[in-house]
Amino acid sequence: MARAARMKIDAVDFFYLSMPKVTTDADGSQDALLVRVQAGRHIGWGECEASPLTCIASYVCPMSHGACRPVGESVLGQPLNEPRDIARIRASVWFNCMDLLQAPHTFSGIEITLWDALGKMLDEPVYRLLGYKSAAPKLAYASQLFGDTPQETETKARSARQAGFRAVKFGWVKYGHCTAAEDEAHVEAARAGMGQDANVMIDAGQIFAQDVAAAAERIPALERYNALWLEEPFLPDALAAYGALAGLSPKVKIAGGEGCHSSPMALNLIDFGKVGFVQIDTGRIGGIGPAKEVADLAVATGVTFVNHTFTSHLALSASLQPYAGLTDHRIAEYPFAPRKVALDLTSNHIMPDNDGLIRLPEAPGLGMSVNTAALEPYLQDVEIVVAGRRLFRSGSLPV
Amino acid sequence: MARAARMKIDAVDFFYLSMPKVTTDADGSQDALLVRVQAGRHIGWGECEASPLTCIASYVCPMSHGACRPVGESVLGQPLNEPRDIARIRASVWFNCMDLLQAPHTFSGIEITLWDALGKMLDEPVYRLLGYKSAAPKLAYASQLFGDTPQETETKARSARQAGFRAVKFGWVKYGHCTAAEDEAHVEAARAGMGQDANVMIDAGQIFAQDVAAAAERIPALERYNALWLEEPFLPDALAAYGALAGLSPKVKIAGGEGCHSSPMALNLIDFGKVGFVQIDTGRIGGIGPAKEVADLAVATGVTFVNHTFTSHLALSASLQPYAGLTDHRIAEYPFAPRKVALDLTSNHIMPDNDGLIRLPEAPGLGMSVNTAALEPYLQDVEIVVAGRRLFRSGSLPV
Repeated sequence: MARAARMKIDAVDFFYLSMPKVTTDADGSQDALLVRVQAGRHIGWGECEASPLTCIASYVCPMSHGACRPVGESVLGQPLNEPRDIARIRASVWFNCMDLLQAPHTFSGIEITLWDALGKMLDEPVYRLLGYKSAAPKLAYASQLFGDTPQETETKARSARQAGFRAVKFGWVKYGHCTAAEDEAHVEAARAGMGQDANVMIDAGQIFAQDVAAAAERIPALERYNALWLEEPFLPDALAAYGALAGLSPKVKIAGGEGCHSSPMALNLIDFGKVGFVQIDTGRIGGIGPAKEVADLAVATGVTFVNHTFTSHLALSASLQPYAGLTDHRIAEYPFAPRKVALDLTSNHIMPDNDGLIRLPEAPGLGMSVNTAALEPYLQDVEIVVAGRRLFRSGSLPV
Repeated sequence: MARAARMKIDAVDFFYLSMPKVTTDADGSQDALLVRVQAGRHIGWGECEASPLTCIASYVCPMSHGACRPVGESVLGQPLNEPRDIARIRASVWFNCMDLLQAPHTFSGIEITLWDALGKMLDEPVYRLLGYKSAAPKLAYASQLFGDTPQETETKARSARQAGFRAVKFGWVKYGHCTAAEDEAHVEAARAGMGQDANVMIDAGQIFAQDVAAAAERIPALERYNALWLEEPFLPDALAAYGALAGLSPKVKIAGGEGCHSSPMALNLIDFGKVGFVQIDTGRIGGIGPAKEVADLAVATGVTFVNHTFTSHLALSASLQPYAGLTDHRIAEYPFAPRKVALDLTSNHIMPDNDGLIRLPEAPGLGMSVNTAALEPYLQDVEIVVAGRRLFRSGSLPV
């Protein structure tokens, strides 16, 4: 493992990519905030799973006071030579950006670039820098939106099965807006399309807010069709509601965590929300380091860690690293039908094999090649000027 | 109570105000994001306690997907005729901005303008629209930063006492960075300066992160000098740490909550963090409506509600309304030495009387007059352009 010369963070660049048309679908793959870090001759890539313009603003915003500084101030110029450099930068962002709510979303993408760059610098996959000896294969679940009708949901499930998936998750659209019986028809359709031997999960997308009774009404149907989990029934902070629902079914566990923007938030969901699956998006929780902390907590508390990923394969690699070595935490979210910008973001992809298993690339860093040549058509120019000073102007993609 | 013609929200404007020089002091009064709403001929004012540029970006950002839309989309054009209109807009922001982390900070200032405008429309102070018959006087505590030395802290306490305050809170600077003995010298100095009959509170500014032992080491000194509370020892989400510390002293209670950006977060601090005082900033939690929910929860659970305010008297009025009628929740944070921009923001001020008591203005809405004529020198021009479209350009202050 060759140690390079002492490196520091020389540049952080943001590239706001978007489909030409963004719809109100609950489909997070319609745009992306791609982040690039440069440390000496080393380059790292990452992605924020967040509002691109708002993240950029929080990176460059003028300081409001000591605990509300721009994210960039805690990153640029910092040493980057070993994993604890990343932890130190993260601690500094936490303290300096305490009152800047967007900061964890913004820093997530940056933190991922740091691991990618460090992995390339040290010639190691990120999961090894995290202390795992090897990356276990994960059972990919095809993550998608419900159909508009149960027939459409069944067709979607059938295609996922035909594409080799042994697990599927349906979510959003009208679930929770209709009667429990109408919702049940979709769950039945998902099971019918996937077959009896597959995993079926349901994502409620926070629709019940804090209403335990409304969520509880859906549990019997989930038990009948043997759903593995009910995901995000409530607001991410509604811990008491989570805890109350969790005790109701011996068969169907509650999943949640994609809204966590810190590792203590995820710990609360485990401790007080009693979730059975904790789902972490490295593009939101503050990056790979805090996600690894949650994976450690999951192991310690007997809860199953799952990635949350609905976007690119760069994000997918970043979200799989924190639990790569945990063989008992086997299921993984896989974006089944992302928009073109998300697929075009990388030139290599993490593809399920015939058994529906996915494997992390055995390559330095995140092991993904960002396909800059393909991204030009998606690039959105951004310019931010405050008090006559141009704080941000987007650059062109490197060739 | 005259009901005006059916109104809708015609315009929302942001004015980014700042001192010419912003320092790294933990003093949130150095800039302000002033918000104005227009509904027919009615005008309302409010303030976000947040990063101005980041809030503006989140108001105008292009949609990323159905659950990550710009805050503005859920506000403009909506009816505004009665309190439940505000609750409906809030629910819509929650759902449409689920994945836009900054949204609660941004919406806080907007929500406050809606109550101010509605109060003026219905010719009622906001606290009456919230269901309180009258506004009880509150005991103002002079909120300020520790001195650099214990002597300086004592001098600061003495001036607060001489200015008529019967309660004081010191925070930040080196507290928690030094040894427990050095910290104790400051607490002793604060007590010496204020006298035995005054309330003294200490604000740790999250310095112990999740380290219960480090916080616990400070408790005996707080007991010795009869501190009323220890504030924000930990990260806002470190509920287990809060809960562990809360049981340690029968005399010194734990306070927290300024970091809450939703009412469920505050409920968690009460339920699981076992705080004795829940401190809510209407400029962060989503506005006056969610703060009132927390006040109701505080009453129901036997916890004391306190405002969090470190900025202007517009923010002070907004933060006092949610618990105005609760006579048993008597203590109130009062910005003792804010920067000039915060004082200049309004032409009237909420001043403590000879007993250190403050009273809300008995006037429609928030009862505060924004001093637009004085604010021109502080105004920061902002321009945001994405993909050739100018999404935001700041206007001039109305005369």
